[in-house]
Amino acid sequence: MKSYDYRSDTITKPTDKMRKAMYEAQVGDDVYGEDPTVKRLEELSCKISGKEAAMFVPSGTMGNQIAVKVHTSPADEILLEENCHIHWYEGGGIGAISGVVSKLIKSKNGIMDIDQIERSIRADDIHFPHTSLICMENTNNKCGGTVMDLNSMKEVYSLAKKNGIKVHLDGARIFNAAAYLGVSPKMLMMESDSVMFCLSKGLCAPVGSILAGDEDFIKRARKIRKMLGGGMRQAGILAAAGIIALEEMTERLREDHENARILAQGLDRIKGLKVEMDTVQTNIVMCDVIRDDLDSYRLREELEKSGVYSTVITDKRLRFVLHYHISKSDVTETIEIVKKTTVNL
Amino acid sequence: MKSYDYRSDTITKPTDKMRKAMYEAQVGDDVYGEDPTVKRLEELSCKISGKEAAMFVPSGTMGNQIAVKVHTSPADEILLEENCHIHWYEGGGIGAISGVVSKLIKSKNGIMDIDQIERSIRADDIHFPHTSLICMENTNNKCGGTVMDLNSMKEVYSLAKKNGIKVHLDGARIFNAAAYLGVSPKMLMMESDSVMFCLSKGLCAPVGSILAGDEDFIKRARKIRKMLGGGMRQAGILAAAGIIALEEMTERLREDHENARILAQGLDRIKGLKVEMDTVQTNIVMCDVIRDDLDSYRLREELEKSGVYSTVITDKRLRFVLHYHISKSDVTETIEIVKKTTVNL
Amino acid sequence: MKSYDYRSDTITKPTDKMRKAMYEAQVGDDVYGEDPTVKRLEELSCKISGKEAAMFVPSGTMGNQIAVKVHTSPADEILLEENCHIHWYEGGGIGAISGVVSKLIKSKNGIMDIDQIERSIRADDIHFPHTSLICMENTNNKCGGTVMDLNSMKEVYSLAKKNGIKVHLDGARIFNAAAYLGVSPKMLMMESDSVMFCLSKGLCAPVGSILAGDEDFIKRARKIRKMLGGGMRQAGILAAAGIIALEEMTERLREDHENARILAQGLDRIKGLKVEMDTVQTNIVMCDVIRDDLDSYRLREELEKSGVYSTVITDKRLRFVLHYHISKSDVTETIEIVKKTTVNL
Amino acid sequence: MKSYDYRSDTITKPTDKMRKAMYEAQVGDDVYGEDPTVKRLEELSCKISGKEAAMFVPSGTMGNQIAVKVHTSPADEILLEENCHIHWYEGGGIGAISGVVSKLIKSKNGIMDIDQIERSIRADDIHFPHTSLICMENTNNKCGGTVMDLNSMKEVYSLAKKNGIKVHLDGARIFNAAAYLGVSPKMLMMESDSVMFCLSKGLCAPVGSILAGDEDFIKRARKIRKMLGGGMRQAGILAAAGIIALEEMTERLREDHENARILAQGLDRIKGLKVEMDTVQTNIVMCDVIRDDLDSYRLREELEKSGVYSTVITDKRLRFVLHYHISKSDVTETIEIVKKTTVNL
Repeated sequence: MKSYDYRSDTITKPTDKMRKAMYEAQVGDDVYGEDPTVKRLEELSCKISGKEAAMFVPSGTMGNQIAVKVHTSPADEILLEENCHIHWYEGGGIGAISGVVSKLIKSKNGIMDIDQIERSIRADDIHFPHTSLICMENTNNKCGGTVMDLNSMKEVYSLAKKNGIKVHLDGARIFNAAAYLGVSPKMLMMESDSVMFCLSKGLCAPVGSILAGDEDFIKRARKIRKMLGGGMRQAGILAAAGIIALEEMTERLREDHENARILAQGLDRIKGLKVEMDTVQTNIVMCDVIRDDLDSYRLREELEKSGVYSTVITDKRLRFVLHYHISKSDVTETIEIVKKTTVNL
Repeated sequence: MKSYDYRSDTITKPTDKMRKAMYEAQVGDDVYGEDPTVKRLEELSCKISGKEAAMFVPSGTMGNQIAVKVHTSPADEILLEENCHIHWYEGGGIGAISGVVSKLIKSKNGIMDIDQIERSIRADDIHFPHTSLICMENTNNKCGGTVMDLNSMKEVYSLAKKNGIKVHLDGARIFNAAAYLGVSPKMLMMESDSVMFCLSKGLCAPVGSILAGDEDFIKRARKIRKMLGGGMRQAGILAAAGIIALEEMTERLREDHENARILAQGLDRIKGLKVEMDTVQTNIVMCDVIRDDLDSYRLREELEKSGVYSTVITDKRLRFVLHYHISKSDVTETIEIVKKTTVNL
Repeated sequence: MKSYDYRSDTITKPTDKMRKAMYEAQVGDDVYGEDPTVKRLEELSCKISGKEAAMFVPSGTMGNQIAVKVHTSPADEILLEENCHIHWYEGGGIGAISGVVSKLIKSKNGIMDIDQIERSIRADDIHFPHTSLICMENTNNKCGGTVMDLNSMKEVYSLAKKNGIKVHLDGARIFNAAAYLGVSPKMLMMESDSVMFCLSKGLCAPVGSILAGDEDFIKRARKIRKMLGGGMRQAGILAAAGIIALEEMTERLREDHENARILAQGLDRIKGLKVEMDTVQTNIVMCDVIRDDLDSYRLREELEKSGVYSTVITDKRLRFVLHYHISKSDVTETIEIVKKTTVNL
Repeated sequence: MKSYDYRSDTITKPTDKMRKAMYEAQVGDDVYGEDPTVKRLEELSCKISGKEAAMFVPSGTMGNQIAVKVHTSPADEILLEENCHIHWYEGGGIGAISGVVSKLIKSKNGIMDIDQIERSIRADDIHFPHTSLICMENTNNKCGGTVMDLNSMKEVYSLAKKNGIKVHLDGARIFNAAAYLGVSPKMLMMESDSVMFCLSKGLCAPVGSILAGDEDFIKRARKIRKMLGGGMRQAGILAAAGIIALEEMTERLREDHENARILAQGLDRIKGLKVEMDTVQTNIVMCDVIRDDLDSYRLREELEKSGVYSTVITDKRLRFVLHYHISKSDVTETIEIVKKTTVNL
């Protein structure tokens, strides 16, 4: 049976070109700073992000955790968009690794309430933690891949600067945001104090993300990466795939976005399902089950019997993520399968 | 000029009887467990709280921080009532000392949304922190001294037990809650896994709080108290005042509550001021400035010129706290002063 | 039966004058910075230590732990004299509270090997922690109350300064050191970046220590004290005793030193016991059991039957600490008791 | 000019067979537990180590840090061999990540003083940290690749078990130890509570190490790996090389050992140089400069001019590490170059 795996874009496998590049990659000991392919990837990342310096890390989580550690001291308070990956999916790392506390900021599709940010900045008082960092996520995974526009980002940067607060941008899917907005990725990253973006996910590299910032930030980040055990020896193998991800795979994200819209419209037309179309901006489709006699666990299970794989978000919501291994015809077939499956439930 | 200090009940000074008891206190080295007065206070605290074991600590903050440390491991997530002291006023300690992250739970006058608690308990997943603790506060300082009723507390205990989660009760002002509800303090504390209550504040002891729980909890708490530097040598001096606080000062809290109601009604009648009377349950009055041409900073400043001291909570809200050093006639005089002051502003 | 308690000078009880001062102490809310007696104690402490600022803390352990926290960042390495209280008796606090690692430096009677300090300072390398702090202890408790002379201290200060490293002085018994050296306490403290000294122990205050340093240091220390729960409300009660400790009790330490010498000589003359006389510099006597058929646990037990209390340090070593409640005639009687007891064992 | 790089065995590059295996590797999303090649590597690692469960990590440092975190709680004390990698080269991670303190145990060529371990285990006392873990390293890098024999390891295991203390084995180069002792690697690992061994270094895989232990240990380790950011998506690329490392590269370590002996003897015969031959057990040669007019920095610099690269350990000691890219004839040529170079200095 054919299988349609929409669980996440993290399941993407390296392309043939990536495998060939890894096979032929020139490598060295990156802990000694001698891996030429890692260096090339880091230089390319600087160019793309408009930052002084960049560093390869084994995962987006490590990139985010290092950024929080560099920007804060223990007992600081950081402000996080309420749906962000750092709060929900990074295993409590900001407490255990950085010793900070957090305040979640309400958002509309990942765009934080700027007034609440302002009110949440702590005064200088012996009872209060020090507010040192704001974290944004663009696109926002848990909101359904929604995009922060340039203006919303600028508002945060400007408020942060006024208050001497750093801003970290979790840009795991920043190239999806850039594709949606039709701007260069650099436009989205250049004002942040640090940014993390992933080479895997929609870009298909097997492993790795980039953390970028100014030179002093990356110098301190390299030390923390070593301490966390993220320093890898002949990492050029992985970096070779990362270079292709950045050079050749960002343009194709538009296809995923187009396929997401097609899927979203198809699902929304099915009786008992509903998709909030204004959140379908990039490669993620959140599909609500609005029939009283059906929940998302049961629907997922039934769909899997026909080869369609999705993720339960709540008991009434399934997530479908579009990516390299899902074509437009796959989407058409998927809609048919979902239609048939729900009719019979 | 006569002064009326409503800034906090923490400003209360020891009574003459307390001073005498401290003067005559039998003491020993409490780090060796040899201070007879500390022992007597801890035994009395067990009786009052219905707990197996109790420990004297230099402050409510230390009691809360030790409780969080004993009940959790680094990277755990704890659920906190959204206005609680632990989140707002303890300097980020839960991050720096315990390495935990937190999720604030919405509340109505300090009574948490039980459904949100349930939804916030994390499943067992490699991405998620482990939910290990719920913290409640009764009475709730930031909500205006509001009280959690027995039923609301039981709902939390029962949900927590079902999910293997501990409950810590921040009972800094638990005797105010008991006085309001007309129940014994034990009724409010006995189901919690740990409770902290203060001997200072409305009870007038100069220094100190009690942390109570089962024997294993207090054994571990003693070790952490030592590490934090809360082990004090001849602490019986302070414990002597604490004993009087518990034996003789809890009944008089009703006077503070009565005075609070009188003050609240008086302020609410003043043009431009408003008090939500249903939150005036114990010894705290939150007074909103509803005139457009006046904010709380200015009002506080003007009142201080006439000897009335209060605390700014937001730019439109002042807090008045009743306590041992404020009599009913002080309240009457205060209302007059506020009336005159606001008329002239 | 009369009792002679040499277990520690921490068991000393407040003098009558201290009790009277506590009874009459003017107090205020020290968290608001309004306790006049605490302020007076802190000002007096500045004068005595030659520091810009000082802060009252509930224990020496808290003073040391706050100092380490202020001077370091997590993952730093600190250099500790190998017998120091911070390493041995503070419950692992430097790891749990400050997240630092440590390197113990060999010492002769508490005077560290200056060459080993120099070799232990880490180079700037991605693999290495950053060396940020050296901690000294004067007098050195575990070495038997031995004293660091001015020259040895200066060597450490000068090496530290050259390398941009801070120095914290654990001066729990610094007044004993000053008495032994015949210099002002200020001479011993003024060059350190921070110093902690105790008001209890030989000085007889019931509770409390002082942490002193420059203004910026104490500003940061106050925030950490609050977070750890060391902020106490009407702490003036305790500070009143502390003022007497500093003003009237430091001179009498010479008596303890004299009594220690008498006791040491007496014990050394007893068959089967041995005291290294050159370590008997202040108020502590380390007495070795050199008979093969006797260990320190048994000897301690037998002595307790005759009312003489001491502390086991190793299975062949007992510690006797002289203090306010042990007179010269007590010492004479003690020697007789030990003599009789050992003869019969 | 031909180059002879003895700086470390971490510089080894993947073999052609490894590159081919990576090219063809079947991969999946390992965070979902779906990478078949990672699974195969982990199963193979269980077989080799005699453990129930194993986990792939991006570096030996991460493996060690996770092990310390799982086995301890903050404020615990751990006992470390005095030259171990965890203390010297992991950036203070045990403090920052696990919040533990440490005590270094003296060793002879990496074999710890068993009596000092026993004396260093803390009693149950409120002042003391809890001793929860002993870490051993076999072979011992900083001691010159020396080997702990089976008997010495058993002594530690048995003492630890008696005291309820866990033992972690840093086996970054455990296959070198097994080759030296002529025993199966399993014999060296099976009694430890956890073991980390590297796939890179002498075994030539580009990236990665294995952490192994019982099922409960690895379950907890997986959660911490995710939190630290060590969860990698299509890690099968790297695991493919790791499988070859374990299956085909361990036998060849004997060549490195033989070459190390040849190099050691050659260097020891050169005037002004000295090698302690009894420490030359595996693939590392520590070479002391015993001429007064020469230090190791200068010698290293001069050797580099002729293409021979080594590492300064102290100002009188250079380290040479043998590995896959250094042949017997390279060693012969190296000895000649060193001879010529030193004569002319």
